Amino acid sequence: MSKFMNYAIQLAQMVDGQTGVNPPVGSVVVKDGRIVGIGAHLRKGDKHAEVQALDMAQSEAKGATIYVSLEPCTHHGSTPPCVDKIIEAGIQKVIYAVKDTTLISKGDDILKNAGIEVEFQYNAVAAQLYQDFFTAKRNGIPELTVKVSASLDGKQATDDGESKWITNKDVKKDVYQLRHSHDAVLTGRKTIEADDPLYTTRIADGKHPIRVILSKSGKLDFGQQLFHDNASPIWIYTENKNLTVDNSNVTIIYMEQCEIKSILKDLYHKGIGKLLVEAGPEITSEFLQSDHLDHLVLYFAPKIIGGSGKNQFFQTDQIISLPDTTQFEIVNSTLIHQNIKLVLRKK
Amino acid sequence: MSKFMNYAIQLAQMVDGQTGVNPPVGSVVVKDGRIVGIGAHLRKGDKHAEVQALDMAQSEAKGATIYVSLEPCTHHGSTPPCVDKIIEAGIQKVIYAVKDTTLISKGDDILKNAGIEVEFQYNAVAAQLYQDFFTAKRNGIPELTVKVSASLDGKQATDDGESKWITNKDVKKDVYQLRHSHDAVLTGRKTIEADDPLYTTRIADGKHPIRVILSKSGKLDFGQQLFHDNASPIWIYTENKNLTVDNSNVTIIYMEQCEIKSILKDLYHKGIGKLLVEAGPEITSEFLQSDHLDHLVLYFAPKIIGGSGKNQFFQTDQIISLPDTTQFEIVNSTLIHQNIKLVLRKK
Repeated sequence: MSKFMNYAIQLAQMVDGQTGVNPPVGSVVVKDGRIVGIGAHLRKGDKHAEVQALDMAQSEAKGATIYVSLEPCTHHGSTPPCVDKIIEAGIQKVIYAVKDTTLISKGDDILKNAGIEVEFQYNAVAAQLYQDFFTAKRNGIPELTVKVSASLDGKQATDDGESKWITNKDVKKDVYQLRHSHDAVLTGRKTIEADDPLYTTRIADGKHPIRVILSKSGKLDFGQQLFHDNASPIWIYTENKNLTVDNSNVTIIYMEQCEIKSILKDLYHKGIGKLLVEAGPEITSEFLQSDHLDHLVLYFAPKIIGGSGKNQFFQTDQIISLPDTTQFEIVNSTLIHQNIKLVLRKK
Repeated sequence: MSKFMNYAIQLAQMVDGQTGVNPPVGSVVVKDGRIVGIGAHLRKGDKHAEVQALDMAQSEAKGATIYVSLEPCTHHGSTPPCVDKIIEAGIQKVIYAVKDTTLISKGDDILKNAGIEVEFQYNAVAAQLYQDFFTAKRNGIPELTVKVSASLDGKQATDDGESKWITNKDVKKDVYQLRHSHDAVLTGRKTIEADDPLYTTRIADGKHPIRVILSKSGKLDFGQQLFHDNASPIWIYTENKNLTVDNSNVTIIYMEQCEIKSILKDLYHKGIGKLLVEAGPEITSEFLQSDHLDHLVLYFAPKIIGGSGKNQFFQTDQIISLPDTTQFEIVNSTLIHQNIKLVLRKK
C-alpha cells in the first residue's frame, strides 16, 4: 500500500458528504519523491480532484505520477474530462484505487492509449467509500442511511411517546458528524411535533444538511423553531395540494402519492447524493423496508423500556418469515461512553 | 500487581460456576520464589482453596506466603475455618484481593493477632468476580443473569412465533459456556413447547446446569426430549397441585403462588448460587423487572424482524417513565462472527 494513495483516500474522506451526487475524490501528484500537488473534489460543479492537484503542480506535473482515489473520468459533465487534463499535463504514471463502473468509456484505456503508464491498485477503504455511490448513480437514487436511537429492547420512545433522552450527549455529537456527512436529513411531522428539533450540525464549521420533511397531511405547525432558523433550506414533501407557507427558506413539493421511491428519485434529481433518515417509528420503518436502504446506524442506550410493543423502531404490517427478514453486515461496533454504536450495511 | 495473585484469581475463575452458593476462590502458596501449593474451591462441601493449597504444600508451608483471591474465612461451615488452618501451617504472610463483607469476624484481624503479616491487595478483576456473590449471600437469592437472543429491533421471534434461528451457531457455542458457568437454567413451558430444547452444555467435559421449568398451569408435555435425557435434574415450579410425573429425574415443586422472589429464595436454599434465565418474552420480562436482576447478556443478530410489537423481549403492563427505566452498565461488547454480544450489569 502506497502512502501517497493513502493520502489521496484521506483527501477523499475529507470531502465525503459535500459533493452531492458526485463522488468524493482525492488526488496527489508526486515527483521525485515529493508531493507537488494535492486536490479534492469540493462540490458538484467545481473542479475534479485531479484537476485541482494538477493546477497546483503546474509545470511540475510533467513526468510526475498522479494518485487518484477513483478512476479518472472520461466524460464532459459540468467540467471537461479529467483524462484530457492528465494527458495535457504530461503525467507519466496514473495510479488509482477503485474502478469507476459508471463510466461509459474507460479512463484506464484512454490513458494507456495516450502512452501513460496506468496502475490499478485496489484499496478496500476506497472501495467501501464508493460502493454505494455506484448503485446510487445507476439508480438515480441517493445513498440511503437510516439512523435510529433506541433502547436495548428496540424502542424509540415509551408507549406514551416520551423519547428525550434515550441516548446520551456523546451520541448526539456523533449524530452531528453523521449529519455533516450527508446532503440532507429527512424526518416526519410527528417527530417535529414531539421534539421540535433543528437537524443542524452543531460542530465547529460543520455543514448543515438540507432538511426534508415528509408530511402527507401537511398539518405542520410553522411556528416551530425549525422554520425560523435559516441554517439550511427546508423542503416539504406533501400530498396536501393546498399547503402554502410564507417563508422563503421553505419549499413545498406536492406529490399525488408521497411514495418513498418517488421522493428518493426527486431528491437525487435535486442534487442530494446522500440522505440520512432521522425519524419516528413510522417513517423509519418505511425506509427500513425500502429496497434502496444502504446503511442502518443504530445507537443503543443501555436501558430497557418495556411497555406493550408501541414505538418499536421497526414495525411492519406483514409478518415476515425469519429467512426473509432484512439482514445486515456489521461494518463496525463501537462504544460511545456507555452507549453502543452499530454501523450496519444491508446485505 | 503480583503475578501470584493473578494466578490465584485465574484459579478462582476456573471454578466459577461450580461452587453453588459458595464463592469461587483460588489460592497459591509461594516460598523462596517458587510455587509450593495451588488450590481452588471445587464444590460446596469440599475443602476451601487455601486448605487445598496448604495440603499440597505440606511442610513447605512453614514460613511461606499464601495468596488468596478472597479474604480467608473465619466460620465453621461444612469445613473448619481457613484462618485456623493457615495459622497451624505456619504461614508467614497472607495476601488477599477482596474483603469478604459477609464474614462476621474478620479473617484479616484474626490472622494479624496470630502474628501473621497480612496484606489486602485490591484487585478489580477479583472484585468483579465476587460483587454479586456478596449480595446473593446477604439476600439468600442466587446471582441472576438473564440471557436474550434478539433481532436489532428487540424481537425474540416473529409475530407468529418463528424463532429458530435468530442468532448464529457461534452464539450457541457461547451460550454453552454461559450454561456451564451457572448452576441452573430457568425457562418456561412455552419455550419448551416451541423449541423442544435441552438446555445442556455441548462442550467437551462441560457441566450441565440443573434445568428449572416455571409452569404455573403445569400443562407440560412430558414426551418432549428434555424429559428423556438424564443430563441433569429437572425441577418444575408449578401452581398446579395435581401435577405428577413418573420420572425420577424430575422433581415437582408446588407453590401456591409462583412468584419470582419465592422461586429465587427456594433455589438458593437448594444450593443454586448462579441462575441463568433463558426463556420467552413473558418470563424474560418478569425476571428483567425483578429487583434481584444482576446481569443481562444480550445477543443481537444483525437483522430486523418487524411486525406489530409482539414477542419483544421486554414487555411491561405499566408504561415506565424514561428516568425510571432499568439502566445498565456495559461490562463488555464483543462481536461473535457478525452477531453482537453485550454483557450488561444492572445499575
